[in-house]
Amino acid sequence: MGRGRIRGLAVSDVRFPTSVAQHGSDAMHPDPDYSAAYVVIETDAPDGLKGCGFTFTLGKGTEVVISAVHALSIHIINKDLDDIISDFRGFYRQLTSDGQLRWIGPEKGAVHLAAAAILNAVWDLWAKQEGKPLWKLLVDMDPKQLLSCIDFRYITDALTEEEAFSYTTSCAWLGYPDHCLKQLCTEALKDGWTRFKVKVGNDLQDDIRRCKLVREMIGPENILLLDANQRWEVKEAIDWVTELAEFKPLWIEEPTSPDDILGHATIAKALAPLGIGVATGEQCHNRVMFKQFLQAQALSYLQVDSCRLASVNENLSVLLMAKKFQIPVCPHAGGVGLCELVQHLIIFDYISVSGSLENRMCEYVDHLHEHFKYPVVIMNASYMPPQEAGYSSEMKEDSVKEYLFPQGEVWQKFSCS
Amino acid sequence: MGRGRIRGLAVSDVRFPTSVAQHGSDAMHPDPDYSAAYVVIETDAPDGLKGCGFTFTLGKGTEVVISAVHALSIHIINKDLDDIISDFRGFYRQLTSDGQLRWIGPEKGAVHLAAAAILNAVWDLWAKQEGKPLWKLLVDMDPKQLLSCIDFRYITDALTEEEAFSYTTSCAWLGYPDHCLKQLCTEALKDGWTRFKVKVGNDLQDDIRRCKLVREMIGPENILLLDANQRWEVKEAIDWVTELAEFKPLWIEEPTSPDDILGHATIAKALAPLGIGVATGEQCHNRVMFKQFLQAQALSYLQVDSCRLASVNENLSVLLMAKKFQIPVCPHAGGVGLCELVQHLIIFDYISVSGSLENRMCEYVDHLHEHFKYPVVIMNASYMPPQEAGYSSEMKEDSVKEYLFPQGEVWQKFSCS
Repeated sequence: MGRGRIRGLAVSDVRFPTSVAQHGSDAMHPDPDYSAAYVVIETDAPDGLKGCGFTFTLGKGTEVVISAVHALSIHIINKDLDDIISDFRGFYRQLTSDGQLRWIGPEKGAVHLAAAAILNAVWDLWAKQEGKPLWKLLVDMDPKQLLSCIDFRYITDALTEEEAFSYTTSCAWLGYPDHCLKQLCTEALKDGWTRFKVKVGNDLQDDIRRCKLVREMIGPENILLLDANQRWEVKEAIDWVTELAEFKPLWIEEPTSPDDILGHATIAKALAPLGIGVATGEQCHNRVMFKQFLQAQALSYLQVDSCRLASVNENLSVLLMAKKFQIPVCPHAGGVGLCELVQHLIIFDYISVSGSLENRMCEYVDHLHEHFKYPVVIMNASYMPPQEAGYSSEMKEDSVKEYLFPQGEVWQKFSCS
Repeated sequence: MGRGRIRGLAVSDVRFPTSVAQHGSDAMHPDPDYSAAYVVIETDAPDGLKGCGFTFTLGKGTEVVISAVHALSIHIINKDLDDIISDFRGFYRQLTSDGQLRWIGPEKGAVHLAAAAILNAVWDLWAKQEGKPLWKLLVDMDPKQLLSCIDFRYITDALTEEEAFSYTTSCAWLGYPDHCLKQLCTEALKDGWTRFKVKVGNDLQDDIRRCKLVREMIGPENILLLDANQRWEVKEAIDWVTELAEFKPLWIEEPTSPDDILGHATIAKALAPLGIGVATGEQCHNRVMFKQFLQAQALSYLQVDSCRLASVNENLSVLLMAKKFQIPVCPHAGGVGLCELVQHLIIFDYISVSGSLENRMCEYVDHLHEHFKYPVVIMNASYMPPQEAGYSSEMKEDSVKEYLFPQGEVWQKFSCS
């Protein structure tokens, strides 16, 4: 029995009015409405399974991404899922290199976010058909098949397919997945919340006061993280963070433009003697950028975003490069459903690639999970490995209906008031 | 009398079916339909002037950019043009840093192209109100006002406003614009077509054969340029171009991913002893990327694109950085209306910034100019400075109507056939 032919793709503009309560606001994004361009694909297979995927957005602009999803959909409609999976690298290349659409990227911006949403749906469907959670689908794959999902274009000077092969196989010592999981859970259970993030960058005196307060509250044994949300120039970042060094933060996150690799390298070099690392990546738009951040030693903590990179395929290439450059991956999460997705990636990374929990952490925000069919499970401040088949990316139908923009009940209320 | 309040913004999806005749195809873009997201803004001022701007696209995806134009339009509708111009930096920042929309960029992809189209229309309108071609508006500005149009965010480690000020004033020795123009024209008149570009990257033996042929045809005194349209990995680029070095090309254009600054630097370093420079920039998405290309000595020829960078504002910052790093600017042109726009930028660059024609050239493709109200004038293979007020960005109404996608006559014919 085949996997079926993709016969339909539906995309919804789902927005949560989080700006009303100022959830998730920071120096650069004062009023986000956490949103998603939510894709559902269906096949003609008798299994009746649907693949659900999305990309995260902040309200306005979701309709732009949706327009890009429609534009890309010609590459998936009527395709046989078997053909996609058997040449996933080729399909990925087709989607990200459309001769006309790549002009408005390439591999960045709305069109890349749209590719992420579509590919996330494909991965979800594949995992559901296999009856496995996505992380297990990845963990169980033989290295050759795993690598065949990755487009190595433009990164072969940092990582070749042959090298990547050695990384995936040398990690096999970690052995049987369930055993590793137990270890993962044991370590997790010992762990209460121990990391605290302070947003900085608006006012130095204010930052000093708040950092002092937090450090006193959490004591010297817990971890303090700083996040500037791209607020500074390069020199400004160095000066500002130097003033905060006495509070011993582990990292400064997003000190400047997400495009400024050399700027981050300068900052990282200046802050290293103070014991402060640089974390970035949530707005790093593709593997070529991550490659350079790693080559230039511009980051100490790599924060992939499951919905900005083009799905599992591109995330895999970044996890493997991080392994080579010995940089811990600490995914960006929060938003809408990012926690649901990244948990699969970090579990895979731990079991099959890095084999280490040292300096690794994954953001968690207790928000909007109720709209997902299989929400994350957190126990003692740790993600519990999901057991349900798929990528945990499926939203509840009622939620999609209610929050659909602008027709949904929630938004109709706003327009009437 | 004020400049008026922006009371309307219209955006059209204008596509030319160039893929039918394979115009403009290359290794990565096999079937482009040269297109534009074309913006017209109107004010309530009695002058009745319209500002016209656009960004260039390749067909599919134009609708995505248009969706982004609509999303951004809230920042310009009902704004007073005087307020925009008197704080152009602030307006630029507002447009490129919308708290929700920046997530799908930031400053890249569809949303940045949309910002370019809108800002191009603002510049066109401003120049028309002043009764000057855009290049003259720029040339006549005092340096302080000129710099007040530029957002220096994220580039101050390479170029501060103070430094930029010295560049714009120290060039005043070039003196009276008309005088310079005469010189420009005199030099231009002596100049027949002397530069020949060969597209490479598909097949090495084929490239060797064609380069040999072209070099024999043009003789040793003319210039041979190579363009790989992002075809290669880093090492591949070095090896391939080394094989073509005997034909003495001046540059290799776009050897690899437009995002790969460090890769370009490696290529540039390897090819320098062969006397071959690296040219890139047509898909370089913002000033932060150009800054790093310059800092890393990753390019020898800087090819700005008037419609990918966010209009004159961002192009100015790049021209000034190029001046500091002593890199000649050779704009990308062709497409739809890119020649019409960039001519203003290179004339300004020559008169007020670089003061040099050495190693400078600007692409020209004789294509689609007939759809513009003030098409470029080429004499003896050189651009003639435009005399009409504005940014030469206005399309003929009939052309917009006829090529409107998908309703226009031209596209209706395709859908019927």
